[in-house]
Amino acid sequence: EATAEVIDGKLVAKQIREEITAEVSRMKDAIGVVPGLAVILVGDRKDSATYVRNKKKACESVGIKSFEVNLPEDCTEQEVLKYISDFNDDPSVHGILVQLPLPKHMNEQNILHAVSIEKDVDGFHPLNIGRLAMRGEEPLFVPCTPKGCIELLHRYNIGIKGKRAVVIGRSNIVGTPAALLLQGEDATVSVVHSRTKDPEELTRQADIIISAVGKANMVKGSWIKPGAVIIDVGINPVEDASSPRGYRLVGDVCYEEASKIASAITPVPGGVGPMTIAMLLSNTLTAAKRTHNFQ
Amino acid sequence: EATAEVIDGKLVAKQIREEITAEVSRMKDAIGVVPGLAVILVGDRKDSATYVRNKKKACESVGIKSFEVNLPEDCTEQEVLKYISDFNDDPSVHGILVQLPLPKHMNEQNILHAVSIEKDVDGFHPLNIGRLAMRGEEPLFVPCTPKGCIELLHRYNIGIKGKRAVVIGRSNIVGTPAALLLQGEDATVSVVHSRTKDPEELTRQADIIISAVGKANMVKGSWIKPGAVIIDVGINPVEDASSPRGYRLVGDVCYEEASKIASAITPVPGGVGPMTIAMLLSNTLTAAKRTHNFQ
Ligand SMILES: NC(=O)C1=CN([C@@H]2O[C@H](COP(=O)(O)OP(=O)(O)OC[C@H]3O[C@@H](n4cnc5c(N)ncnc54)[C@H](OP(=O)(O)O)[C@@H]3O)[C@@H](O)[C@H]2O)C=CC1
Ligand SMILES: NC(=O)C1=CN([C@@H]2O[C@H](COP(=O)(O)OP(=O)(O)OC[C@H]3O[C@@H](n4cnc5c(N)ncnc54)[C@H](OP(=O)(O)O)[C@@H]3O)[C@@H](O)[C@H]2O)C=CC1
Repeated sequence: EATAEVIDGKLVAKQIREEITAEVSRMKDAIGVVPGLAVILVGDRKDSATYVRNKKKACESVGIKSFEVNLPEDCTEQEVLKYISDFNDDPSVHGILVQLPLPKHMNEQNILHAVSIEKDVDGFHPLNIGRLAMRGEEPLFVPCTPKGCIELLHRYNIGIKGKRAVVIGRSNIVGTPAALLLQGEDATVSVVHSRTKDPEELTRQADIIISAVGKANMVKGSWIKPGAVIIDVGINPVEDASSPRGYRLVGDVCYEEASKIASAITPVPGGVGPMTIAMLLSNTLTAAKRTHNFQ
Repeated sequence: EATAEVIDGKLVAKQIREEITAEVSRMKDAIGVVPGLAVILVGDRKDSATYVRNKKKACESVGIKSFEVNLPEDCTEQEVLKYISDFNDDPSVHGILVQLPLPKHMNEQNILHAVSIEKDVDGFHPLNIGRLAMRGEEPLFVPCTPKGCIELLHRYNIGIKGKRAVVIGRSNIVGTPAALLLQGEDATVSVVHSRTKDPEELTRQADIIISAVGKANMVKGSWIKPGAVIIDVGINPVEDASSPRGYRLVGDVCYEEASKIASAITPVPGGVGPMTIAMLLSNTLTAAKRTHNFQ
């Protein structure tokens, strides 16, 4: 029977949204500024459209103004850059987000690097990642998903300092910044990736596991040290005839097995997912506060 | 009895300097450009003066022009910034190096960030470190000491991909970039630091150990897996009555014990030290080639 505490990302995200709502209204009352987030969506991928819609809705729910641009799949890189440049110059926009992935004919790096570093609420700019990696430096923004993972640990009072942590996955947007954040909080961090020879051996030593791979149920019970804390970032569709859509979403970690061994675990959905959006709102608020020097 | 192969950094550095000499003269013949390195030394620390002198000598030995500025301990941050700005604008200077540590009344970050990213041959700019950390991005320069460590592994045909690596130390200039480089070459990397609870346990799992701590003989034989490869970055003075100076230099790793267990090891001195300077010359050459679009 399950013994692990469920780390309720949905609930924590709701609390954070309430905190942000209060701050947004305090700022509006004090200096008349409303934080603004611009979202650029290129093409007509259904999943991307859903993400963008959810982000817009989340903005509305906390009083952040959102600006949306939808461009056709076949538009040019130049056009996207033009919108970014306009948003960079627009004082009512404090954060700019380009929904990924972009169509294949565009250079993702060119586009991401064009976002002004002060408005890079995704925190994907190499300057931000560099500052995250360096002691004594502070990034302007921490990437939303890994920030959400650490925030969950904090809000559940899970100690990080001195703990052994394993991050599975090393992408620019999740795995690598998650490892840097854990190390910045004095965990001893190991990073597992597709070339790791015995991922189970190393993972089983971890007090804290963050998995961001994208493979359903990859992390089995045998990979987990009794009492470990598990943050499961993966979102993977698996066939499910009993679901009206024919599939359901699961994480990278075999939840059934893990929940019997771990001391705490995030569910999928309802774990890291809602936190990602909450952190985006938080970064947007931070951007607006910084621009207007509002404490 | 010792069985480990000695990784001869002095010899490899000499080979690299010869390669650089050839390239410098090829470039001069082809386009009439001589690479130039500017070194800024503030204060009168003896060790810093020695390092700067060695760097100048090394430049001369390969035909790189060196420019040196010596400023008094009590000069202002403004003065240092003025020299940096002049060197940034000077087309005969391709690399700029500020010898650390700076006097305490100066803000190290302000000064390091002032160096133009195209001339940051030390590779310490957060933008460079960020690019090093990110997949699909390339840093303009890789920091010299960690680059030297990896170069030694390459020149001794020591495979990195899929290997377990432990980096001891996480400084901005050695440990962190060394870990990022190893991970970029597909090692599975763990970073040990002063808050790590059982450094021995984790280190003993490593196929490759890079130690950059600054504690004489900290890494004992028992920390080392038989057959591991050891790159010892530490330079630590220990009392030695038999030496004319009263001390000698040793690494972080207990060489006597390690050389019986490891398959290969760098000595101190004569290991990583000479490689650091060779990589500085290499970065300066790279800077000049890039500026003049010379292949
Ligand atoms: N909850 C949320 O809000 C978010 C969820 N996600 C989800 O997180 C997951 C990861 O996303 P993302 O980081 O963008 O994915 P990427 O595909 O960019 O990265 C996946 C990483 O996993 C590693 N990997 C692949 N196979 C294995 C394996 N067998 N063993 C160990 N490591 C492996 C890869 O290694 P290598 O580098 O060697 O290729 C890579 O580093 C996805 O399921 C995604 O949907 C992502 C963002 C936000
Ligand atoms: N060969 C060469 O050319 C060069 C040699 N060096 C030498 O390398 C060494 C390291 O230099 P540098 O990186 O600048 O040093 P720093 O002092 O900046 O960093 C030392 C690192 O070691 C960690 N550390 C300290 N004590 C322990 C411990 N007991 N166990 C595990 N880790 C520990 C620290 O951890 P924490 O972060 O938790 O404080 C820190 O990350 C020095 O001996 C230096 O002289 C340096 C540069 C060039």
